[in-house]
Amino acid sequence: MKARIIVTPKKAVLDPQGKTVQSALEHMGYAGVTGVHVGKYIEIDLAPGTDRGAAEKALQEASHKFLSNPVIEDFKLELVD
Amino acid sequence: MKARIIVTPKKAVLDPQGKTVQSALEHMGYAGVTGVHVGKYIEIDLAPGTDRGAAEKALQEASHKFLSNPVIEDFKLELVD
Repeated sequence: MKARIIVTPKKAVLDPQGKTVQSALEHMGYAGVTGVHVGKYIEIDLAPGTDRGAAEKALQEASHKFLSNPVIEDFKLELVD
Repeated sequence: MKARIIVTPKKAVLDPQGKTVQSALEHMGYAGVTGVHVGKYIEIDLAPGTDRGAAEKALQEASHKFLSNPVIEDFKLELVD
């Protein structure tokens, strides 16, 4: 089982990395880009036989506590087999 | 339309950020983690009416050229409505 966590800056928070990518895309001639958000992607491999419910609970907690900064970031957790 | 690009280090490449997260999880008592990979997540908002095929081609090229480093990173591009 694998867990995928995507951490993105909250919409109201400045995203300088996103702005940089957006203007780079424009300068390189890629038109039609109206916004770019850059975040973190964390993939966690879990030992076989891990309990799904328990893993989800533990990872929600870990994501909130130290994989993201809840003041300025949102996260999305997804478990896949 | 939105594009999501996930950039991860190739399996053969050292991933110090992933190792750090893995040992942090272990130290904080989260058992059963067998590996962690940390990458980048880029979400691109596209103007309404953008041609899907053309956007996909342009973003494949942009991802390969400057959103990822193809020597040490893999990327996955996904277009969603």
